[in-house]
Amino acid sequence: MKKSNSVLVFGAHPDDLEIGMGGTISRLSKMGFEVIPIIATLPNFTENDTKDERRSESVESSKILGCISPEFLDLSPTQMIFNRKLVSLVDKLIKKYQPESVFTQWIGDSHQDHQILTKSVMSASRDIDNLYMYETTIPGGLTEISFKPQLYVDITTDIDTKKNALTCFKSQFVRCGQYWLDAIVGRSSYRGYQIHTKYAEAFEIIKTIKF
Amino acid sequence: MKKSNSVLVFGAHPDDLEIGMGGTISRLSKMGFEVIPIIATLPNFTENDTKDERRSESVESSKILGCISPEFLDLSPTQMIFNRKLVSLVDKLIKKYQPESVFTQWIGDSHQDHQILTKSVMSASRDIDNLYMYETTIPGGLTEISFKPQLYVDITTDIDTKKNALTCFKSQFVRCGQYWLDAIVGRSSYRGYQIHTKYAEAFEIIKTIKF
Amino acid sequence: MKKSNSVLVFGAHPDDLEIGMGGTISRLSKMGFEVIPIIATLPNFTENDTKDERRSESVESSKILGCISPEFLDLSPTQMIFNRKLVSLVDKLIKKYQPESVFTQWIGDSHQDHQILTKSVMSASRDIDNLYMYETTIPGGLTEISFKPQLYVDITTDIDTKKNALTCFKSQFVRCGQYWLDAIVGRSSYRGYQIHTKYAEAFEIIKTIKF
Amino acid sequence: MKKSNSVLVFGAHPDDLEIGMGGTISRLSKMGFEVIPIIATLPNFTENDTKDERRSESVESSKILGCISPEFLDLSPTQMIFNRKLVSLVDKLIKKYQPESVFTQWIGDSHQDHQILTKSVMSASRDIDNLYMYETTIPGGLTEISFKPQLYVDITTDIDTKKNALTCFKSQFVRCGQYWLDAIVGRSSYRGYQIHTKYAEAFEIIKTIKF
Amino acid sequence: MKKSNSVLVFGAHPDDLEIGMGGTISRLSKMGFEVIPIIATLPNFTENDTKDERRSESVESSKILGCISPEFLDLSPTQMIFNRKLVSLVDKLIKKYQPESVFTQWIGDSHQDHQILTKSVMSASRDIDNLYMYETTIPGGLTEISFKPQLYVDITTDIDTKKNALTCFKSQFVRCGQYWLDAIVGRSSYRGYQIHTKYAEAFEIIKTIKF
Amino acid sequence: MKKSNSVLVFGAHPDDLEIGMGGTISRLSKMGFEVIPIIATLPNFTENDTKDERRSESVESSKILGCISPEFLDLSPTQMIFNRKLVSLVDKLIKKYQPESVFTQWIGDSHQDHQILTKSVMSASRDIDNLYMYETTIPGGLTEISFKPQLYVDITTDIDTKKNALTCFKSQFVRCGQYWLDAIVGRSSYRGYQIHTKYAEAFEIIKTIKF
Repeated sequence: MKKSNSVLVFGAHPDDLEIGMGGTISRLSKMGFEVIPIIATLPNFTENDTKDERRSESVESSKILGCISPEFLDLSPTQMIFNRKLVSLVDKLIKKYQPESVFTQWIGDSHQDHQILTKSVMSASRDIDNLYMYETTIPGGLTEISFKPQLYVDITTDIDTKKNALTCFKSQFVRCGQYWLDAIVGRSSYRGYQIHTKYAEAFEIIKTIKF
Repeated sequence: MKKSNSVLVFGAHPDDLEIGMGGTISRLSKMGFEVIPIIATLPNFTENDTKDERRSESVESSKILGCISPEFLDLSPTQMIFNRKLVSLVDKLIKKYQPESVFTQWIGDSHQDHQILTKSVMSASRDIDNLYMYETTIPGGLTEISFKPQLYVDITTDIDTKKNALTCFKSQFVRCGQYWLDAIVGRSSYRGYQIHTKYAEAFEIIKTIKF
Repeated sequence: MKKSNSVLVFGAHPDDLEIGMGGTISRLSKMGFEVIPIIATLPNFTENDTKDERRSESVESSKILGCISPEFLDLSPTQMIFNRKLVSLVDKLIKKYQPESVFTQWIGDSHQDHQILTKSVMSASRDIDNLYMYETTIPGGLTEISFKPQLYVDITTDIDTKKNALTCFKSQFVRCGQYWLDAIVGRSSYRGYQIHTKYAEAFEIIKTIKF
Repeated sequence: MKKSNSVLVFGAHPDDLEIGMGGTISRLSKMGFEVIPIIATLPNFTENDTKDERRSESVESSKILGCISPEFLDLSPTQMIFNRKLVSLVDKLIKKYQPESVFTQWIGDSHQDHQILTKSVMSASRDIDNLYMYETTIPGGLTEISFKPQLYVDITTDIDTKKNALTCFKSQFVRCGQYWLDAIVGRSSYRGYQIHTKYAEAFEIIKTIKF
Repeated sequence: MKKSNSVLVFGAHPDDLEIGMGGTISRLSKMGFEVIPIIATLPNFTENDTKDERRSESVESSKILGCISPEFLDLSPTQMIFNRKLVSLVDKLIKKYQPESVFTQWIGDSHQDHQILTKSVMSASRDIDNLYMYETTIPGGLTEISFKPQLYVDITTDIDTKKNALTCFKSQFVRCGQYWLDAIVGRSSYRGYQIHTKYAEAFEIIKTIKF
Repeated sequence: MKKSNSVLVFGAHPDDLEIGMGGTISRLSKMGFEVIPIIATLPNFTENDTKDERRSESVESSKILGCISPEFLDLSPTQMIFNRKLVSLVDKLIKKYQPESVFTQWIGDSHQDHQILTKSVMSASRDIDNLYMYETTIPGGLTEISFKPQLYVDITTDIDTKKNALTCFKSQFVRCGQYWLDAIVGRSSYRGYQIHTKYAEAFEIIKTIKF
């Protein structure tokens, strides 16, 4: 596959990307990579929010992160099944963008959409050089497997951008409150400390090609 | 083994306990458990600090956490080998205190002392009902295995005590600076969020008996 | 989530609960917990048995164990797919009962219904404090992963109740014979020995909150 | 289950069997086992190839390996879902042939069809004595888990037969070229070296009964 | 390595072999294999028992199992360290007997002697075709890893021999009582049920060569 | 730690580096990295070979690979123990060279020296940005864990250099013969195919920092 400078970033829901790798998206964008967010579904978390609100939150956040607006697949719950149909859809995106790297959610999070999306991205990424899973943070989303931090990205110069992007998601603030933001920033401090810097984001690696 | 209300907490070095489970020690002490810290070695991290300084930092921290002063084994590096001798030493402590729970460091941290101590504690804890490993935070201490958070303790009411205890370790502040504290508190926010509270500490479980 | 004293126990089929944790259900019921069995499907194992027979076996067994009658979801095979629909169904049960603990089958058993049910229970249990998987026993049901016993419940005073509950499943006796019962009691002896008692049941822990 | 001398070998696609265990099929056939290849789907990889071409490639290859012609299930992509329907289909094959051993693809390959087929074979193999997964080789098909070689079969006397069988798949040669064959033979050299022979094939074991 | 019909069975302590694979030793002996037990250490569990008593218990048990008397290495605790010296010692035994199979204790048991012996046996078995780990049963001997049953041996016709061999270890009966025997037989029922028989022993496989 | 352009490569024995990552050493050297091989021990495999012969084989191979001559630690077997002493020795090398990357042997190989060296390198690499384990190939060196290929280096232009370097180890040729070389090259074909190239080497990642 011909290499491009684009990077595909998959998230089942709006704000998944910002939580997991908002700092890295900002950093990659500054470095000149074309980061393309792909959002699989547009759920309504509270009775009052609508798909359009969630979509425009995501668009606003992308501007802050410095990347293009997300591609919204707007899949219905019945379309979120691990089979050839969903894999083909991801296949087409990968053929279209020929990314140099693909990021997706950690396979071990308990949310069914996260697992199914990631399994599909893995299946479709057989010709991709670099495939990473970002760390998910939902309350209580534990399963029988555990996250293995392997790739660290220093986001010390991007932490404010990450915070600003997260504050776009007003519907999440209503649901989760301030301690949602504290937890995400807190985790960045922790991951930063592991590589002797102030803030970092961590990823589990499926494969990477180097040198 | 007759049950007592004592809890043994093993750390290879001074401050390992506070970093990993200072909040939980505070909480257990308030609940009436007799928490007994056991410190295996007394290293000199900088040229200027002495064993005595590190010992008194630990004693001061224990007072803040509300537990008794640590038992210092003061093992030399050549004594830190996984064999019957070290296991027997831990054995004696367990026979002496007959603890209802034992906490030790996560086996997957890269530090040789942490691994060797924990292997010895596991060997000696065959008759113990509850055996947990706390989350270690040293910069870069990664190995081929990953931490699996399973037991969560809500330390929201104990976070200030934990911070105060950590500030006793002046020699660490010199070495690591403020971002050391931020990383530890940050991780507590992250672990707290996973159980819908502000601050928590997480543990991997070897075994527990309930009901 | 407000805590109640109810405990949800999920099984794909009638008798899965009794095999895996009949002793623990009895014990929890005696302790005052409201144990609520949820049975996902009602298969016909032999040509002669009917859904009604299997249902009444389960009701009879519940009486012996001291818990309320199971809630039968009566899902058809085509409904046993890991997707949002099945997760939503479990979600509703969890919202309805607000359990203090949830038990489900071990994820590593080879039966498709066991795996799919447990994946759905994990997804729906993001706000649950205590989530455990009980040990499954079907002949030959091995996969690429292995059961990790972590939580032990002493059922020495409940082993006869467990045996009596198991004998309610006459259709299983026809299929499996006496050595079915011997295997289940035998495993309890083995698990008991590991914690210095006569009989125990073992569970793998997804998460638990303590202190 | 009554033992026969038949061996069932499952592959999602034509040539999966030859890549993973062509040498072992040849060897087992020579030893007198009745090896029965089961091919789940018949994909068209290039625009020009047809299902009939792929089917006849497989039939030709079987002749070279010395086993009977494959049973083609010809499942459509929408039928490749891990549920009772697919498991029942495999169940029937197992009841029909009562095999002494079952081989299927490694569960950790990224291809959705490989994973779904193997999960179904595991579910259906609860009464089977010997269940093995062969090593898959597709470019880039990596996931979060890793292959564990445990069973080795010496195929030094069968390597030429394996090569000849692989050359039947003309459509694959067009797609992958000579280095496809080199990779497969190369892996056999590597696996052979691990058991002190020239060529071998390796398998991960789910279960086996011996003595 | 030239194949012989001998089978080496390693145990750190007297009675480890009988607990883990007494039935299989009996079965292999009946089948004509020369089973050679190797006992690494001779501990004194109670104040009154002596090394000689423990040695003669082992010899008596071997007679019942139908194999030759164990080779007692009589290593002191300080010799039980994972290094070249211990590996060389095992190396010599393997060169001497050239066994067709080697059995050792499960690596995941918490006992330091079990782990160290097994690591040494693995290192020394690089030229061995078949290497298995038997299931250990000590009370509470849990670690961070879990046993993976893969090889099953049907010991229905050997269960009484196994029980008789176990009763030779009078010092263990004093320490552990009748429920020790019940646990071991109970586990055999459970393992038997998994392969549709009355009694079985289970092993984790490091490697095996077949066909 | 200040970054340099040096790369430390640890091997327990002469030729371990060449087998595992000879192509990558050649490639890194061409790219301008200063690759520094560290050889821990100098064993005598056959009665006739001497330490000096093995040392000069290594020196000759380094010339072919384009890197500097190895630093020979010449540790005796009794010094190969995982403790502070060995870790301190590795510590000093890391402080001396301040490498941008460290490569060591895969932790899961059965050889005691490989395991002990790698554990020590992990302990000493807490401040290192990039830590990788190369794939080991000794006959039969299997343990309970499995290699996870994650980092791939394309060595198509370096395969001949790798082969030439390997032929320096005349003592190994005497021991292992031609099929030793075929196995190593064969594995490179297999790893190459996984990333759509002719030859590659694969590594398991402990940690890496990027962007």
